[in-house]
Amino acid sequence: MSDTKRLTGIFTPNIVPLDGSGEINEPELRRYVDWLIERGVHGLYPNGSTGEFTRFTAEERRRIVEIMVDQAAGRVPTLAGAAEANVRETIKACEHYHAIGVRAVAIVSPFYYRLSAAGVYAYFKEIADNSPIDVTLYNIPMFASPIDVPTVKRLAEECPRVIGIKDSSGDLPNMMRMIAAVRRVRPEFSFLTGWDAALMPMLLIGCDGGTNATSGIVPEITRKLYDLTIAGRLDEARDLQYRLLTLFDSMIYSAEFPEGFRAALRLRGIDAGIGRQPKSESQKLELNSLSRDLQCLLAAEGFTEEPVGGCPVGQSLDPEHVARIVQGVVGELKRRGMA
Amino acid sequence: MSDTKRLTGIFTPNIVPLDGSGEINEPELRRYVDWLIERGVHGLYPNGSTGEFTRFTAEERRRIVEIMVDQAAGRVPTLAGAAEANVRETIKACEHYHAIGVRAVAIVSPFYYRLSAAGVYAYFKEIADNSPIDVTLYNIPMFASPIDVPTVKRLAEECPRVIGIKDSSGDLPNMMRMIAAVRRVRPEFSFLTGWDAALMPMLLIGCDGGTNATSGIVPEITRKLYDLTIAGRLDEARDLQYRLLTLFDSMIYSAEFPEGFRAALRLRGIDAGIGRQPKSESQKLELNSLSRDLQCLLAAEGFTEEPVGGCPVGQSLDPEHVARIVQGVVGELKRRGMA
Amino acid sequence: MSDTKRLTGIFTPNIVPLDGSGEINEPELRRYVDWLIERGVHGLYPNGSTGEFTRFTAEERRRIVEIMVDQAAGRVPTLAGAAEANVRETIKACEHYHAIGVRAVAIVSPFYYRLSAAGVYAYFKEIADNSPIDVTLYNIPMFASPIDVPTVKRLAEECPRVIGIKDSSGDLPNMMRMIAAVRRVRPEFSFLTGWDAALMPMLLIGCDGGTNATSGIVPEITRKLYDLTIAGRLDEARDLQYRLLTLFDSMIYSAEFPEGFRAALRLRGIDAGIGRQPKSESQKLELNSLSRDLQCLLAAEGFTEEPVGGCPVGQSLDPEHVARIVQGVVGELKRRGMA
Amino acid sequence: MSDTKRLTGIFTPNIVPLDGSGEINEPELRRYVDWLIERGVHGLYPNGSTGEFTRFTAEERRRIVEIMVDQAAGRVPTLAGAAEANVRETIKACEHYHAIGVRAVAIVSPFYYRLSAAGVYAYFKEIADNSPIDVTLYNIPMFASPIDVPTVKRLAEECPRVIGIKDSSGDLPNMMRMIAAVRRVRPEFSFLTGWDAALMPMLLIGCDGGTNATSGIVPEITRKLYDLTIAGRLDEARDLQYRLLTLFDSMIYSAEFPEGFRAALRLRGIDAGIGRQPKSESQKLELNSLSRDLQCLLAAEGFTEEPVGGCPVGQSLDPEHVARIVQGVVGELKRRGMA
Repeated sequence: MSDTKRLTGIFTPNIVPLDGSGEINEPELRRYVDWLIERGVHGLYPNGSTGEFTRFTAEERRRIVEIMVDQAAGRVPTLAGAAEANVRETIKACEHYHAIGVRAVAIVSPFYYRLSAAGVYAYFKEIADNSPIDVTLYNIPMFASPIDVPTVKRLAEECPRVIGIKDSSGDLPNMMRMIAAVRRVRPEFSFLTGWDAALMPMLLIGCDGGTNATSGIVPEITRKLYDLTIAGRLDEARDLQYRLLTLFDSMIYSAEFPEGFRAALRLRGIDAGIGRQPKSESQKLELNSLSRDLQCLLAAEGFTEEPVGGCPVGQSLDPEHVARIVQGVVGELKRRGMA
Repeated sequence: MSDTKRLTGIFTPNIVPLDGSGEINEPELRRYVDWLIERGVHGLYPNGSTGEFTRFTAEERRRIVEIMVDQAAGRVPTLAGAAEANVRETIKACEHYHAIGVRAVAIVSPFYYRLSAAGVYAYFKEIADNSPIDVTLYNIPMFASPIDVPTVKRLAEECPRVIGIKDSSGDLPNMMRMIAAVRRVRPEFSFLTGWDAALMPMLLIGCDGGTNATSGIVPEITRKLYDLTIAGRLDEARDLQYRLLTLFDSMIYSAEFPEGFRAALRLRGIDAGIGRQPKSESQKLELNSLSRDLQCLLAAEGFTEEPVGGCPVGQSLDPEHVARIVQGVVGELKRRGMA
Repeated sequence: MSDTKRLTGIFTPNIVPLDGSGEINEPELRRYVDWLIERGVHGLYPNGSTGEFTRFTAEERRRIVEIMVDQAAGRVPTLAGAAEANVRETIKACEHYHAIGVRAVAIVSPFYYRLSAAGVYAYFKEIADNSPIDVTLYNIPMFASPIDVPTVKRLAEECPRVIGIKDSSGDLPNMMRMIAAVRRVRPEFSFLTGWDAALMPMLLIGCDGGTNATSGIVPEITRKLYDLTIAGRLDEARDLQYRLLTLFDSMIYSAEFPEGFRAALRLRGIDAGIGRQPKSESQKLELNSLSRDLQCLLAAEGFTEEPVGGCPVGQSLDPEHVARIVQGVVGELKRRGMA
Repeated sequence: MSDTKRLTGIFTPNIVPLDGSGEINEPELRRYVDWLIERGVHGLYPNGSTGEFTRFTAEERRRIVEIMVDQAAGRVPTLAGAAEANVRETIKACEHYHAIGVRAVAIVSPFYYRLSAAGVYAYFKEIADNSPIDVTLYNIPMFASPIDVPTVKRLAEECPRVIGIKDSSGDLPNMMRMIAAVRRVRPEFSFLTGWDAALMPMLLIGCDGGTNATSGIVPEITRKLYDLTIAGRLDEARDLQYRLLTLFDSMIYSAEFPEGFRAALRLRGIDAGIGRQPKSESQKLELNSLSRDLQCLLAAEGFTEEPVGGCPVGQSLDPEHVARIVQGVVGELKRRGMA
């Protein structure tokens, strides 16, 4: 029933550019789509967590997908986030996305309330049984109800419409458990990792690709890491994975998500505007400081000029500096119940 | 600037009755509002977590408040949940609720993403500076970004529109810390607890009232517990708190929230219909079993008949039985990242 | 089989004074025992978490109890921590403590490994079946395997030797669940809270007393809070509970546990020496700063002189200052997996 | 100052065989040492978590190391767990182990109390400055205070005696962060992973080896996985890693740790006796059931006969069966505060 080709490669969860009034900046979004496709991403992934889907209205979410599918014009497939307020609204979104040529939808597990495995199963089953379009499960236990291995397996067995899972937990052994449980019953099922910090090892243990926020900022690196790993050029891949980790950590842990990515995107020449989540004065100052660090990191990769005043020799990629940032924030995340 | 009377007493976070098509059942919702007011609740609290605000569309959330305010007709004040997709939409909702006579809005801390204290502050500051109606902070760290004590204090100092906090953490020493930090600078600030299991001790250490889901099911008990505690009749209050704890635990831990409350509401004669979150077969069976247990508990309190076949003598309120349920589910909750 | 009198009142978990070589300072420990008894504590509790039982050798743990029992000379009962490397060693310790006149032992749930409820049950059952002395369960889920309500109930039913539980979780509804489950089958079972921040409300919902670290530093206050609460003088008790909370938070959250208590003890005139856990330079500086804050707090209570330079007016008990400390550290604790 | 050769390969954390009286079974322990060395492990690692170091007395811990070093007789190096009640006792153990020819000690981070990064640093610094023998840090945040990346880096820079870290967190990106931070300043520093579920990917991103509990049960597989991965034979390695994951999950998640390993060891012909932690009747039944499952798994690998009655075709390695076990237990672990 579902499209036979397995989803593979790097799907980019994109930031949505906003204009000066805080509305969707359609021209810049279209330019961004072209920019991404030209730099080699295998697919687009609007309305993901990086895309701040919860901060847009239902109407805006549809419009984002419409613009991007139109702009992509078939050059790459689109995987569209389609979770709405309840199952009925979500199915309506699935129907609409199907009608306009989306390849598959990604449905995040129920959030706010944290559901049991039985509840998560019932939710996806109801959607999968009524969706005209292929469905990818989206597991992000940091933000939403976890989808456990038996639930993935049961849905894979019972629902031909469910064709893959996007997992952002970063839990490598759990990814192996999912692959071991599902591959035998659904060989074409797709496993995508959303945790850029482990992209290479995830691919090496059997993942088909990733939905990686870094690919929205440095698509050249994320794509190359994918290619090198698939080609078995491990020494080069390992080196690139370490560099990507530094970039990823800097963007994800240094500011309220996804503000680090938004700041980096501006450095790449895409004007994403100002995010909808208000910022305190202290946060604005921190973001300026982060932006300078990111510019050094991106300059070291050849993607931009160094900031005025230059970058400390060798410090631009200093893993310890990044490590301190990460450690400082991990406590914060745990305090907020995320890790 | 804000209404001078401190919010006190029991505000009921209500389930929204649905009809056979899953739409808002307006006549039953109006009947439920009357039923609650007749049984003594001090105020109404639509669009809370019990009210499954995330499972309704923005339009539906407005309609729920409109119906309830209209039906209450000034008999009791309404505290309306007003969180929408982003700050701009939330402020629009505040304006609307102000126009139709809502007493104050309750704004849950940002959810899905977990924000830092600085981000939580910036969010509430932006709303409070632009809201024409009094704002109550809503802290529910189980589901949303935590609002810490310094943030509560800073908002209380800087924002006259912020007039209180509803805290559903159940963390008694933290409630004391909030009261100690805020009362001196804002004597009229209101502290409401959303954790029915500790209503009596929370009132005894200085809370002004509660937004308690049990008051939507057994308003007679919750109200009486409030009255006895305020009156200093501690022995009677303690006995009632233990009985309320058993009811609360049974409803909150035995099924996907708020299905236990919905099942109990039907036993009280209000037809809440079937919830929008799909249920698996195993969940339906468990809910039937729970419903029978709840009927015994409610019968023991004189609110309903015993189920056919009767209830085991003394078992209807067996704390150990409830304890086993609680323990079993606490592990589940932790697994889902909630506790 | 067991002593019929229920354990009630305040049992003090004491710091062990060390001399300049890091050895047990026997004269100072004896003086400390007298000091505590003179200030009204109902019992002694050596080898608790405050007593750093894990940082002493098995021989030292025995000697601490021997010294204290000898010095108490029957004036107050002793509840001795008796957990050793394994069940056999623990039972040997129980036998020894029984022989020297200890009233009961307290056995912490297995730690390092985190055991299931079944494992926790088996552990305590084996000990209770072989102990010649009454046993108090010690639940401190922050540090050790949790003891859940059904396990407490089962042990209470099956083991006459198990006569009570000391719970340091601070979870008030859970304490109510334990009391509800156990009181009917074991009316003389004792419930002691180890969480000073909630001593008054814990007593009000039915606890028999506490094992409170603050009682080792300000026994006058902890004892008075107990007396006022038992006497139903709630307004006075509430005021004292708020003041005790400030002291407790300052001591527990401002430094590596139990260094804040050790620093405060010195201010009360007991020389506890230098703890065995090494401190970094930054920790030593922080401890000096904390010591000054504590001196202001203790001076405000009339227990000591203000430090040279004096204390800011009103700031000595500033709840916001303490709140900031608490919030800062809660993130830390969660990062360490403790909260 | 320290031995120049980097620790590499598989070090086996061994179960300690007990006799019918629960005492160390020296002959069987000696036979086990030979059995392990004959099957290719690169080193021995007594007094690890698998070795239940907390359940032995200080004297017993020494004796275990003495027996094993004597039996190894220089054929392979020994990495000995040396953590004792406090720094002074630990340094004494270091001196003793140095004297008898141990290659290096492994010191677990402080446990029971959860220390801050500053406290963890001070602890290891004090030990490293006074130890005559090389020290390996042991990070196991599930059970003990976490050792964060800046702390590892600082200790690596300041303490030549600290020559490596054994990390049992299973957190792959964090391992990369440690390697990135430390390798440049201490090229010979050794990174060992204690999380068998991710051994292959950990080696691929730069680890030097592992301290893996599976190597005590199926040393043939763990060693072969190491060799294949190092040789770059990734397809074979991946297949073996999946099989090892199934074995690891079965042993670690199906019973109270390390009882699953003990049961499997008996199936390999080493009589480990009965563990010191008491078991309830339900736990004994579960262990029997697990033992049968393990026998099928080991039979499928050719290490033992199938149990009487045979094994279900293909079921012996059914990943879904194992997945269900894992999921069921992960909730349990979280409930106990471990995950």
